Amino acid sequence: MEDNESSIARWISILYRYGQSYISREFESYNIGSGQYIFLLTLYKKDGISQENISEHLKIDKATTAKALKRLEEEGYITRHTDLLDKRAYKVYVSRKALAIKPAFIKTIKKWNTILSAGFSVEEKAAVVKQLKKMAQNAFEHGRFKAG
Amino acid sequence: MEDNESSIARWISILYRYGQSYISREFESYNIGSGQYIFLLTLYKKDGISQENISEHLKIDKATTAKALKRLEEEGYITRHTDLLDKRAYKVYVSRKALAIKPAFIKTIKKWNTILSAGFSVEEKAAVVKQLKKMAQNAFEHGRFKAG
Repeated sequence: MEDNESSIARWISILYRYGQSYISREFESYNIGSGQYIFLLTLYKKDGISQENISEHLKIDKATTAKALKRLEEEGYITRHTDLLDKRAYKVYVSRKALAIKPAFIKTIKKWNTILSAGFSVEEKAAVVKQLKKMAQNAFEHGRFKAG
Repeated sequence: MEDNESSIARWISILYRYGQSYISREFESYNIGSGQYIFLLTLYKKDGISQENISEHLKIDKATTAKALKRLEEEGYITRHTDLLDKRAYKVYVSRKALAIKPAFIKTIKKWNTILSAGFSVEEKAAVVKQLKKMAQNAFEHGRFKAG
């Protein structure tokens, strides 16, 4: 059996949780939890996206998405409006409060990337990104095949 | 600014969520959710560990840990007993039901690793694992420095 130390999935999972833990600490003063920042990050790029599309885009189930967005709304970082064309759908927008913290937010994510790749040469870093992308493509293709 | 496509943290996050989505589908019939399997996996290796140590080991907060373990207990996969030396602490054990699905469980994780590394040579796969480990070490060192 493949030993545990060489399991890619295990290291991905560990790195993800370290990241969540780092971001939670950094964003504590903003009242943004580790489960919420990824939604805000998505909304910075796709302002006005529907709640359902966020869920699909992030591969996070609808209930978890709804809960995270509700928290962000309560904290004043986003607003949700009924879609004019589909009354059951929500469109989600970032608030001025969210835009005000955007630079600090992006800086924190960038800092985390720098921490992760400490001691890597430019070439090594590029190789890591290339391999991670390739694995994401593999994961995507597998999911598509299953669905189709 | 570092562009989004070359953000290591972003790809880690995407790969993690693809993994969660895959494992949820595979374990649906066992009633084990994507938030619970990581706890079961830890308990297979560290049977009898305390609830607090699981939380520390996985870098997952106490409330989330308690909730996931409660679900696993309700499904009959684990049992929790008060520590004889510390009445406020729980020790957690896997059940026979959990041991019965262990081979299928390990096989699924292994299959996911195979999916992720499709098209990688043995050397490429070893390089990925080495780099992921190095990043985890960087993340760990950073956390230790902050705490100390």
